[in-house]
Amino acid sequence: MGFSQEIITEIDNIWQANLKHPFVQEIGAGTLPVKKFKYYMVQDYVYLMDYAKVFALGALKSPDLKTMIQFSNTLQSILTEEMSLHRQYAAQFNISEETLASAEPAPTTLAYKNYLLSVAQTGGQAELLAVLLPCMWGYETIGKNLAHSPGAKNVLYGEWIAMYSSPDFSALTEWLIQEFDRITAQQTLTQRVRLINIFKNSLRYEVLFWEMAYQEEKWLV
Amino acid sequence: MGFSQEIITEIDNIWQANLKHPFVQEIGAGTLPVKKFKYYMVQDYVYLMDYAKVFALGALKSPDLKTMIQFSNTLQSILTEEMSLHRQYAAQFNISEETLASAEPAPTTLAYKNYLLSVAQTGGQAELLAVLLPCMWGYETIGKNLAHSPGAKNVLYGEWIAMYSSPDFSALTEWLIQEFDRITAQQTLTQRVRLINIFKNSLRYEVLFWEMAYQEEKWLV
Amino acid sequence: MGFSQEIITEIDNIWQANLKHPFVQEIGAGTLPVKKFKYYMVQDYVYLMDYAKVFALGALKSPDLKTMIQFSNTLQSILTEEMSLHRQYAAQFNISEETLASAEPAPTTLAYKNYLLSVAQTGGQAELLAVLLPCMWGYETIGKNLAHSPGAKNVLYGEWIAMYSSPDFSALTEWLIQEFDRITAQQTLTQRVRLINIFKNSLRYEVLFWEMAYQEEKWLV
Amino acid sequence: MGFSQEIITEIDNIWQANLKHPFVQEIGAGTLPVKKFKYYMVQDYVYLMDYAKVFALGALKSPDLKTMIQFSNTLQSILTEEMSLHRQYAAQFNISEETLASAEPAPTTLAYKNYLLSVAQTGGQAELLAVLLPCMWGYETIGKNLAHSPGAKNVLYGEWIAMYSSPDFSALTEWLIQEFDRITAQQTLTQRVRLINIFKNSLRYEVLFWEMAYQEEKWLV
Repeated sequence: MGFSQEIITEIDNIWQANLKHPFVQEIGAGTLPVKKFKYYMVQDYVYLMDYAKVFALGALKSPDLKTMIQFSNTLQSILTEEMSLHRQYAAQFNISEETLASAEPAPTTLAYKNYLLSVAQTGGQAELLAVLLPCMWGYETIGKNLAHSPGAKNVLYGEWIAMYSSPDFSALTEWLIQEFDRITAQQTLTQRVRLINIFKNSLRYEVLFWEMAYQEEKWLV
Repeated sequence: MGFSQEIITEIDNIWQANLKHPFVQEIGAGTLPVKKFKYYMVQDYVYLMDYAKVFALGALKSPDLKTMIQFSNTLQSILTEEMSLHRQYAAQFNISEETLASAEPAPTTLAYKNYLLSVAQTGGQAELLAVLLPCMWGYETIGKNLAHSPGAKNVLYGEWIAMYSSPDFSALTEWLIQEFDRITAQQTLTQRVRLINIFKNSLRYEVLFWEMAYQEEKWLV
Repeated sequence: MGFSQEIITEIDNIWQANLKHPFVQEIGAGTLPVKKFKYYMVQDYVYLMDYAKVFALGALKSPDLKTMIQFSNTLQSILTEEMSLHRQYAAQFNISEETLASAEPAPTTLAYKNYLLSVAQTGGQAELLAVLLPCMWGYETIGKNLAHSPGAKNVLYGEWIAMYSSPDFSALTEWLIQEFDRITAQQTLTQRVRLINIFKNSLRYEVLFWEMAYQEEKWLV
Repeated sequence: MGFSQEIITEIDNIWQANLKHPFVQEIGAGTLPVKKFKYYMVQDYVYLMDYAKVFALGALKSPDLKTMIQFSNTLQSILTEEMSLHRQYAAQFNISEETLASAEPAPTTLAYKNYLLSVAQTGGQAELLAVLLPCMWGYETIGKNLAHSPGAKNVLYGEWIAMYSSPDFSALTEWLIQEFDRITAQQTLTQRVRLINIFKNSLRYEVLFWEMAYQEEKWLV
């Protein structure tokens, strides 16, 4: 059992809270209010600009050329394919690309993206992978879980589910998991505790991100 | 009028929300429940370890030796004087230094400290000063505001108020403000908008930090 | 006249020393000893791994999505197209990809790549562009200069000249120059002096890189 | 035997080349031409500004408060004590502080300081210590070696030798060595090879730095 599997076993309660958040369930049922999805889409776009940057940092911190090329490929894939789906949704909602790119991050979005950037800049390759993994792995699992749900045939949510349940997205996720397991195979206990903590906080932010969208969170001041 | 003054005039509502938060007012009145102060003290210690790191980054990004020495002096002052007051309080509360240093950050603490680190690592000297300023300037203003309050004679809150209303702390704050005004004097409009935004988010976190302590915030999962 | 043009006018002696180095002239004449070219090819590969990383840093520090996509595209182009030409040459010389990727940098290579990484990490987008520009611009100019030279028909040097005189490479260079001119249009005099200095050092390293290869430089100890 | 000792045993030829460079020997004999020492003093000042920055990065990357305080103390010590000796020498030579601080780095100084900054920014705490260690350890050993040499009574070189043979400087060095040995005790073979390589390059730069001063190195273009 790889270290990644050990971690999600240990923090199964947060892993489940992520997979089964009402926001996710209502996408699957096709009943999520459009307003909440629209809120989510804008915030997720803002988030993805920094999520992509962590892959750029991954290329920077790669120990070899092969890894650098994989990070570079994934960076391209997020900037073009994944964010292009968001732009299509935005167009449907009559939100311009400029509005999308310049939207103010809500509190949870701001907290999550700075967590990503801060860990990825201060840490090494293992820390960088630990902070990236919950997002990709969570979405891939949710994608698979919802692949045959009513939502998958929903005119609005179908494409979203299709993207995250696609073989391409699974392949990316699989690479990330294997890379993490490979790199952490020789880590000391102290290092592992540190990595579990990073993975846990990042996963917590995944849960809070759904919650933010579900509540349409606003700044207090 | 320096740029710093322009900013707090523009976002006066957040500036006031910071100065007049119930947590602050109850310190001034000497009526804040000890439990909330204890919660605050631990989280503030965790926060200060990263706040200090931003001064290390300031030394790293200094354009000249004089500035580097000032950042280095302030780093020393936070690690020794300011954090030593926290350690004294902790001792009174029977919290060991180890417990203090290894305490888990609450959601708002985690969000704030990663905002600091992320902005300070990605940006230049102006961005670094913008993200540092609200904390120091806010505390100094609060210190002065409360210098003759009932809290200043309170056996628990007196020393806290004394530190932040001291001439030493004012001198540090004054240096930071002048440095920021000097560096931003020739900035373009685009750069200024960006700096206002950083200052604003950092100040928002100051308000949220009081709120966190006042509510004794916990992680959702 | 853009700032880039002003700079190469000011340091024309170094610009010319770069374009007319014996190493370059002998490639153009098709008379460069293969041994020197082989030395160069290996060191250039080691160099390009870090040169590519500066484009990853460019993506990280991009102020907007459009710029991020351009940096990401160039990163891909270096890792795949440009370095693939090196791998083809290496194969001709019976140098394996492993040998190529793990070759020890010579003194000048080490100095140049750490200059790139250090400036790109510490500085902002303008500094990053200033340190990147001499390499790409120099190669593009040399490519054009040699496009109709005897070397362009040389069985060994022809492909090298073809790559750097290609329209694709010109387009990349044009983008980098325009981006630099755009970003620096509103810089203060102090900032400009700093950028000229970075460009100058980076260009000096271009000259020293040819010299290193021409002399087949070795470590003193 | 700690890892640090293993390393200098393995690369004893470079270690000896550092300790016995003519520049060092002539300081010990009190015969070094003043012109060379003056050249050295200016370049070393330029170097120390960035060497100090690596201690700021050490504070940034410290895993605990105790380590952060030690890095912060050393940063202070370099900026005040060590650089103040340079300023005294400069005053003797009629070189103003401004001239000193704004001197252009010679090729070897530029290469060395960017090696320091690049490794310290990209790597973790172990890499940072590996790149710092040769300078401090080398100077301390040379200080001890020359403590009873004729140079120690020389009106010009006496103070220089006194500083690097002082108990304070030994204590700093001892701390750095112990920290490095402690942190690397659990490293894998791959990590150790990487650290040896960093230490080796940094030590090479120490040798090249004496050589630069001895030859009064200049830029080719």
